[in-house]
Amino acid sequence: MKFKVKQKDLSKHINIVQKGISSRTTIQILDGILIETLNDKLKLTSTDLEISIETFLDAEVKEEGSIVANSRIFGDIIKKLPDSIIEVEVKDNKINIKCENSEFNILGNYAVDYPDLPIILQKENLKLSVESLKNAIRQTVFATSQDETRPTLSGVLVEIENNNISFVSLDGYRLALMKLNTDYNIDLKIIIPGRILNEINKILEDTEEDVILSAAPGHVLFNLGDTIIYSRLLEGQFFNYKDIIRDDHKTKVIVNKKDFQNALERASLLAREEKANLIKLSIIDDNIIIKSNSEVGDVMERVLSNKDGEDLNIAFNSRYILEGIKIMDSEEIQLNLMGSLNPCIINGVEDDSYTYLVLPVRLAQEDF
Amino acid sequence: MKFKVKQKDLSKHINIVQKGISSRTTIQILDGILIETLNDKLKLTSTDLEISIETFLDAEVKEEGSIVANSRIFGDIIKKLPDSIIEVEVKDNKINIKCENSEFNILGNYAVDYPDLPIILQKENLKLSVESLKNAIRQTVFATSQDETRPTLSGVLVEIENNNISFVSLDGYRLALMKLNTDYNIDLKIIIPGRILNEINKILEDTEEDVILSAAPGHVLFNLGDTIIYSRLLEGQFFNYKDIIRDDHKTKVIVNKKDFQNALERASLLAREEKANLIKLSIIDDNIIIKSNSEVGDVMERVLSNKDGEDLNIAFNSRYILEGIKIMDSEEIQLNLMGSLNPCIINGVEDDSYTYLVLPVRLAQEDF
Repeated sequence: MKFKVKQKDLSKHINIVQKGISSRTTIQILDGILIETLNDKLKLTSTDLEISIETFLDAEVKEEGSIVANSRIFGDIIKKLPDSIIEVEVKDNKINIKCENSEFNILGNYAVDYPDLPIILQKENLKLSVESLKNAIRQTVFATSQDETRPTLSGVLVEIENNNISFVSLDGYRLALMKLNTDYNIDLKIIIPGRILNEINKILEDTEEDVILSAAPGHVLFNLGDTIIYSRLLEGQFFNYKDIIRDDHKTKVIVNKKDFQNALERASLLAREEKANLIKLSIIDDNIIIKSNSEVGDVMERVLSNKDGEDLNIAFNSRYILEGIKIMDSEEIQLNLMGSLNPCIINGVEDDSYTYLVLPVRLAQEDF
Repeated sequence: MKFKVKQKDLSKHINIVQKGISSRTTIQILDGILIETLNDKLKLTSTDLEISIETFLDAEVKEEGSIVANSRIFGDIIKKLPDSIIEVEVKDNKINIKCENSEFNILGNYAVDYPDLPIILQKENLKLSVESLKNAIRQTVFATSQDETRPTLSGVLVEIENNNISFVSLDGYRLALMKLNTDYNIDLKIIIPGRILNEINKILEDTEEDVILSAAPGHVLFNLGDTIIYSRLLEGQFFNYKDIIRDDHKTKVIVNKKDFQNALERASLLAREEKANLIKLSIIDDNIIIKSNSEVGDVMERVLSNKDGEDLNIAFNSRYILEGIKIMDSEEIQLNLMGSLNPCIINGVEDDSYTYLVLPVRLAQEDF
């Protein structure tokens, strides 16, 4: 194998495939990047057997071939070379790298030892803008469960029905739901592992094109143009989340998101993890009073709001309510409440595509 | 005690004193910031008994007094409050903090329990620009020794003689020397702990005024205007470094600093710590050939240079030669050599205020 390639290009695409390499792999060859020539292109592949990444770049191919190069060593070398043309020549498992006044010789592994990627028969295709996909991932993946006894909850449900795509995550304490409109008239219900969505979001950072999502039994593909990401899906039934998002509310409160978030963050300073990060909210007329106390001291915060309905005392784990509010983009948000024992449902006022639901902490009324 | 203060001011000065608080202190009160009123000023103090910091800020003092507030909790609260006026009121050991719609109550410690700072009789004063002090610290402190059996080498020697101030550090493998001119006609020789210089450099980041350095037996003071830093000095004799910076050289090589550094960095990718990070330099005519090899592979780099004197083979621990070169500011640098067994002395070509000396690794000539 022999090819010439621009240092900047190769470096950029190595960064992409490196996101598919697990630092904890025990299979030595999976530390490697599979490099193959393909007409006038170079194809780089990485996999940890759950996520696989293929990426293509232009190259001047002088001799066809393939090799597996250690991701860290090959990556470090390429990234440190000057912004110039790199010439790579492979003989047997020896890789020779030349660039201006630098010359490296490193050992690779034969491509024949590299595992085959799953062959996927694509079924359903749907196009999403990078921005909406990034937002949908960012606003749901943080609420997936870390509890290994309920594996489906460690993923995000992607569900298409009635021209709506929903991204849903929940962990028993809160639920995050992002709804996007679509023209696609298909029915789809897949669960994508949260860890893989985090890696995908990092790759999407540098992407501007639309993303084509293709589902197939057991797998999902994200096609970003010159990069394709394959992910294993989680098997099993997702929690029937629709039943817990109720429509009947006795109290509706509109509040400035930033003011409310700042007040919650300050109140959380005195909440303590061993006490469930407890913060207490009293919704009285047009004020939300937030209180918290621990052996360190106590705090009281007041936030102006616009209330419709009954006054209310309700307590939360500050981490769960804050994580959802922080991630919302609306300037004003609406809290929808139904007594102190039922979940609080939070939406943006101008934009209702995102819903965050958080369970209260049960507390006797005299403790407020 | 009762005072009003701007949130931005208090927040900024808390950041400064927090650098004097050790995260590993076992004395509970040293987790705290001593807050005292002083006419129309607030004085904040912190210490870990090796470094002490005092900083002053404007405040509207309504009632004199003092208190010790936990640095992390008090700091977190003040930093999260809105950009507005904060009102603090202390009764006994109870601290009440009000700002707009927020109110905190936390417990402090009585100031009487806070240790006394050393009373220092200032002796020698000398003024330095912030920029030269920052550079002198940055370019020497990295080469101090981590070896606890030779405590004086864990510090930087500051020596004034013949209208020169020298900052010197060495660790048995390399030496860093920064010389500044001064008008001061005093003799001074003190050793400041490296760890404290690192903290001082962080505080200097936000400083623009000149720094007045005052030495006294056992201590040194850095006066930055509204902040004073006290540091304990290291006792003992510093290594007699002047004898090892020789003037007679058989080979002088001028090289572009950035090119040389990049080539060394690439060659280091294949050097391995268990093999002393060995890299081999051959200075032949107007080329520096850099080679390194390990079980991973081998590398050869060529850098154009301008040589005066004998050809030479010499080997280094790549970490020690690189750290010194990285920190140099000159565009072109000069390597001064005297055979393969003597130290290499490196200067800037246009600016000879900085000298870096690095010992070679002994290697048989046939191993090059």
